[in-house]
Amino acid sequence: MNLSLLTDFYELTMMQGYFFSCPYDHGVFEMFFRRQPFEGGYTVFAGLWPLLEALQNLRFAEEELQYLDSLKTFKKEFIDYLKDFTFQGDIYSVPEGTVVFPYEPIMRVQGNLMEAQLIESMVLNLINFQSLIATKTARIAAIAGDKPVLEFGLRRAQGINGALMSSRAAFIGGASATSNTLAGKTFGIPVSGTMAHSWVMNFNTELEAFRKYVELYPDRSILLVDTFDTLKSGIPNAISVYKELKKKKPSLMGVRIDSGDLEYLSKRARNMLDASGLSEVKVFVSSDLDEWIIHQLIQSGSPIDAWGVGTRLVTGWDDPALTGVYKIVARSSGGVFEPRIKISNQAEKITNPGVKNIIRFYNGKNQILADLMFLEEEGELLQQKISRREPIRFNHPATEYARFTLAEYSSTRIMLEPVMQKGAIVCGQPSLEEMKKYRQNEIDSLDDTFKRLLNPHIYKISLSDELKSLKTLLIKKIKSEYDEIYKNS
Amino acid sequence: MNLSLLTDFYELTMMQGYFFSCPYDHGVFEMFFRRQPFEGGYTVFAGLWPLLEALQNLRFAEEELQYLDSLKTFKKEFIDYLKDFTFQGDIYSVPEGTVVFPYEPIMRVQGNLMEAQLIESMVLNLINFQSLIATKTARIAAIAGDKPVLEFGLRRAQGINGALMSSRAAFIGGASATSNTLAGKTFGIPVSGTMAHSWVMNFNTELEAFRKYVELYPDRSILLVDTFDTLKSGIPNAISVYKELKKKKPSLMGVRIDSGDLEYLSKRARNMLDASGLSEVKVFVSSDLDEWIIHQLIQSGSPIDAWGVGTRLVTGWDDPALTGVYKIVARSSGGVFEPRIKISNQAEKITNPGVKNIIRFYNGKNQILADLMFLEEEGELLQQKISRREPIRFNHPATEYARFTLAEYSSTRIMLEPVMQKGAIVCGQPSLEEMKKYRQNEIDSLDDTFKRLLNPHIYKISLSDELKSLKTLLIKKIKSEYDEIYKNS
Repeated sequence: MNLSLLTDFYELTMMQGYFFSCPYDHGVFEMFFRRQPFEGGYTVFAGLWPLLEALQNLRFAEEELQYLDSLKTFKKEFIDYLKDFTFQGDIYSVPEGTVVFPYEPIMRVQGNLMEAQLIESMVLNLINFQSLIATKTARIAAIAGDKPVLEFGLRRAQGINGALMSSRAAFIGGASATSNTLAGKTFGIPVSGTMAHSWVMNFNTELEAFRKYVELYPDRSILLVDTFDTLKSGIPNAISVYKELKKKKPSLMGVRIDSGDLEYLSKRARNMLDASGLSEVKVFVSSDLDEWIIHQLIQSGSPIDAWGVGTRLVTGWDDPALTGVYKIVARSSGGVFEPRIKISNQAEKITNPGVKNIIRFYNGKNQILADLMFLEEEGELLQQKISRREPIRFNHPATEYARFTLAEYSSTRIMLEPVMQKGAIVCGQPSLEEMKKYRQNEIDSLDDTFKRLLNPHIYKISLSDELKSLKTLLIKKIKSEYDEIYKNS
Repeated sequence: MNLSLLTDFYELTMMQGYFFSCPYDHGVFEMFFRRQPFEGGYTVFAGLWPLLEALQNLRFAEEELQYLDSLKTFKKEFIDYLKDFTFQGDIYSVPEGTVVFPYEPIMRVQGNLMEAQLIESMVLNLINFQSLIATKTARIAAIAGDKPVLEFGLRRAQGINGALMSSRAAFIGGASATSNTLAGKTFGIPVSGTMAHSWVMNFNTELEAFRKYVELYPDRSILLVDTFDTLKSGIPNAISVYKELKKKKPSLMGVRIDSGDLEYLSKRARNMLDASGLSEVKVFVSSDLDEWIIHQLIQSGSPIDAWGVGTRLVTGWDDPALTGVYKIVARSSGGVFEPRIKISNQAEKITNPGVKNIIRFYNGKNQILADLMFLEEEGELLQQKISRREPIRFNHPATEYARFTLAEYSSTRIMLEPVMQKGAIVCGQPSLEEMKKYRQNEIDSLDDTFKRLLNPHIYKISLSDELKSLKTLLIKKIKSEYDEIYKNS
């Protein structure tokens, strides 16, 4: 599918506007979000590689140009320009799997105004959704601990690609496998599955259905035990079958409970299995699970060995969109960048101007302490200070005089790295397994207080002295200009 | 993209199981859901045509077969069978845009067990999501009344296809236009858009940005007025520009407010525009809108002419998945169908057995009264009774002795119609405009009590006498069988 038109229509009308009448030729845009999803303490960034691949292939083919022409909105010169259009901009980004926080740039796009404007919708669509699902999964996986989380969401996901991309993001976020076969093929994610109630209902008895299944799949049988009655029928039948199968020493035997009171049923099922000498049979559960329910089941000592999570994982359920935005922070005409700011009566909606990056500070145990946003032009000076381990001042992004000085830190890291230059990918592509491992390291770098389900500790994102001064100056300047307009209107 | 693997892995393992060891060859499956989304009074069915087209093109190509082979789970005979697989089943469905209710079949799939099992995940993925979004949009459009609802959700939608399919479903549900250009091209939906804050920030003043915009788009200018300060800067600048433009009699002038207190700002903006002789300039708003916020703004008399709705529409926000299921209701070996039931300790999870359809009853004002589920085999008799306008008995699906008799009704309609036979589409494809009109008629057929945002009236879905008897009989039979197993275990 040609994705050149996967863009809000206003991007194209603005693009034509820049083509014909804008005095500026280049722009720098940042993607950031203002609110942690799920009222959580962190977000896991994901979606970068699908985005880079889409950008590299971005072309307007004849069919797309004809459609645009049919709208009677675009002039011939502009459509001719689109004919040869390719994305030639630069992108800086954190890697997939990085933990990120509100207000800091997680991606920076530099290019001519037209190309940088055009890709806004695509950047937001791909990054918002995959980051949301990677975050949701990381929350669930953190609660599940060493027990596997299996992503079973295809049937409730938001469309075909919603399913495919949520399987990808879930794997980075910590899922062990997916039920979505297409995601297995496309991304090399392990596929997994048990059986549906219809399997059981297509034999004359549940016992026969179970027997046939373990005959076919002796090494991967997980029997669904709630088609008729979990404790009266499903578990007794599973026990009969597994007592025979056990002699063959299969590599996996399990039962799956998909409805009812999961604490009560898992405890009773465990007892019944153990009493029959089947302590190796694992108990899988599924049924509208999320991090809250899993937490409760674990707290109550439910003997559950694996979690099948669907709807609430692949949709983000209690917060189904990461509300990332894409804002211009600088523009140039002929090479010199000039910082831009968007002001607002709501302090949290005022943007941070200028071409920026982030330094993340770590303590000696490799845990993260705080992030500092700074202007690229002050980067060298800051790095020198850091190499001398000088104390660094952190300013609150909005509140005046709210600041602190970080005197002790062990190491630092520059967060935004070049991933695309002049439209070409300039970084290596990690495997999904590598992204997953990296994501686990990232989560491990967070103090436990950031991982609380309820009211987590809020991580500090601050402005450097230079950036804070620039922001204050620009706000003052713009406000006075517009007070003047209002007085004269 | 080849969608043959867009299926839960267990569908394929069960399919192989049926291939080698199932005594039954045919099955009838129904799709239904158990709970209205958004705690609302109705659901708008959508997604049928994308599903029919996907089913008609369902083939396993070499690449897919190689992948399956690589999993070391499937035997050669089964993979050979898949090589020539096409979907050859029959599908009965309500048309897109129909209002539907919990527990009733909204789609029925009949075919050999393998094909009918394989497509479960695809049916659910496509229908669940599009019905969810069509329903959400219908709720919003019902509140917005004659003011247009514009779907602006691409950047927050769940992936590429999530965006595309939600634009489609939103249009059926009542949106007037989309911002998603690709949806415009793919489905012929009108595209619409205004400008981003970045447009304004790419000129030296807001006034210059507005002037350039109306020069380029004199007939479709909607100026975004909240980049700096809506009342002090945006509206005064828009007034300056529109006072000049007005002389050219443009077909549309408008301002868009995208942040802040929308009641206060829209009222003040309206006053300022009117006082400047610009009563024809329309006020558009956007900013995390949904049916609840729109309702409140309308109640407070906010003078708003059009609603730009994004995130909360395209994700279903407060209820982001329709939890439809796909259950077997009958099976056969050699032609005679035998009803199947899934029982459960939760009464609402017991399925309704048998090959069924629905009759919907209407009063003289073409408003719907109640739906009756019946067995296809009793259809003729029922139709005769209805043609004689005899009273019809309606039985509660779960509660014993809860029933009523409908004595007066003006007309009836059989809800499930054949849409696919032996794998070929057998119904005409309406345009999206026609589906939208049909959906509006459907909503009009609902009494207002079903449309309340809070605690709507619950529409009655009942079982015919025959169906009720069959269900009771099967529950009794299965329970006694499994009590026996438990006693002996």
